[in-house]
Amino acid sequence: MTFNDFKATWTPVIDNFLREHLDSEVADKKISQIMSYSVMAGGKRLRPLLFLATLAALKAKISDNEIRIACGIELIHTYSLIHDDLPAMDNDDFRRGKLTSHKKWGEAEAILAGDALLPMGIQWIVQGSNSANLVNIITKAVGPNGMVGGQYLDIDSTNNESVAHNSEFINKMEWLKTGCLLRACVEMAADYGHANMSQRKQLLQFAHAFGRSYQIYDDLVDVIETSEEAGKKTHKDSENGKNNTLTLLGVAQSREELSALINEAQQSLKNIDSHVLAGFLDLYKKVL
Amino acid sequence: MTFNDFKATWTPVIDNFLREHLDSEVADKKISQIMSYSVMAGGKRLRPLLFLATLAALKAKISDNEIRIACGIELIHTYSLIHDDLPAMDNDDFRRGKLTSHKKWGEAEAILAGDALLPMGIQWIVQGSNSANLVNIITKAVGPNGMVGGQYLDIDSTNNESVAHNSEFINKMEWLKTGCLLRACVEMAADYGHANMSQRKQLLQFAHAFGRSYQIYDDLVDVIETSEEAGKKTHKDSENGKNNTLTLLGVAQSREELSALINEAQQSLKNIDSHVLAGFLDLYKKVL
Repeated sequence: MTFNDFKATWTPVIDNFLREHLDSEVADKKISQIMSYSVMAGGKRLRPLLFLATLAALKAKISDNEIRIACGIELIHTYSLIHDDLPAMDNDDFRRGKLTSHKKWGEAEAILAGDALLPMGIQWIVQGSNSANLVNIITKAVGPNGMVGGQYLDIDSTNNESVAHNSEFINKMEWLKTGCLLRACVEMAADYGHANMSQRKQLLQFAHAFGRSYQIYDDLVDVIETSEEAGKKTHKDSENGKNNTLTLLGVAQSREELSALINEAQQSLKNIDSHVLAGFLDLYKKVL
Repeated sequence: MTFNDFKATWTPVIDNFLREHLDSEVADKKISQIMSYSVMAGGKRLRPLLFLATLAALKAKISDNEIRIACGIELIHTYSLIHDDLPAMDNDDFRRGKLTSHKKWGEAEAILAGDALLPMGIQWIVQGSNSANLVNIITKAVGPNGMVGGQYLDIDSTNNESVAHNSEFINKMEWLKTGCLLRACVEMAADYGHANMSQRKQLLQFAHAFGRSYQIYDDLVDVIETSEEAGKKTHKDSENGKNNTLTLLGVAQSREELSALINEAQQSLKNIDSHVLAGFLDLYKKVL
């Protein structure tokens, strides 16, 4: 199966699960609507697909429980976007071509929608997996030593010239902000799908390279695409004094760095039977 | 053992665990400091004590793992306070006699401190218990059908005259906001401490009455205590157009309701050997 076939098969299943279960499992219709507004705003479902593709590489079955876990990850990702967009954070008015949650519903509502999506996402993961291990992996990935820690470093270093040329700091910040959660998708699938030691090692190598490259890709999208293509305001990072790999290395060297990471990710999959996982790397072609 | 002995024994253990592990387990020292500021602001540790007291009633041992679970609950409780105080929510400048997180550190920092405490709290619970069940209980209690749902109803109904006399709505909102998490402390302990069917039923009855009465108590504190005694601005609810049991019933009838719930909670403990759990109800005496 190709990546595109895999994506075409599972994206609608993910979308339907999210829509149906946010409706049936959230008792209050208004908060359900506010949560759904952001979850159903047309994301690529990259993280749930990555979880499912890793399971597929391990020949694990994909059924209702696995979809529930995958969708739990998407709830958590959506929470992070809603909070990142808040006025006190990145202050974004648009996301995926639609008004951001706080612009549409109000700031308290957006904070609470995020606060609702995070525990519900973890709940779906534990309900689908019945695994304390998976909860440990996901909570670590999104806590102060993971995603939220990265977001904190980002906020703390904005307009801070002293870190603009500190590649170690920028690598760490971008890894925490974006890489950690992507890696957790693969790690949870490796655990849930009973990867053997060698498979696990290779999958985590892939996840590390893929997770690290994603933020570089996202930063490149910010300068290369027009707002219309990206569905959000672009060219914002440099205007806002953000420090990232792109502001550190420039476009040409960022592309080289991205190519090197893609190569590393491909190499790590050599002994694993997965065209599908390798296909995730094609996503990056549009900025190379 | 009396409630006061129990409290005197375990409160310092809880405080030390929180202080030490927020320091050692959060890599970034600044975000660790921001998290600790609110966690170590002098809370009563009611929820972790309730979890531990329920374990004690079941003759379960209390050691490092159980303290980790108890402290995980406190992290989650603290996250909820930080977010409730935000300018977009209740806009409080003081909490427990100290500046609130956003007044002390900034709004982005406060949002992120909360966002860091919630998953870390869940992580401590799963690390201490290794139990998927406990994760299911806690995530349900704090998600859209629990605490966050209650906070949403609160925000949504503020200054809304149409619900001011709707006792069903107010009961539901207060239960979700406050009762759910208190009940979860007892339910997690019942599960973790292997309560039999009859013990479980009685403990959950106690938890329901205790959880429901706590918000009534808290609302009474708001009108009866001075700001200095309460450590936060009091008499705020009515000024801010909040609807609660107190605005619905008035002081005298709220006290009657509280007394009835205390009685119900005491009755439900009749066959359980716990002076300690019953002692939690003495907390309410100061507003009766």
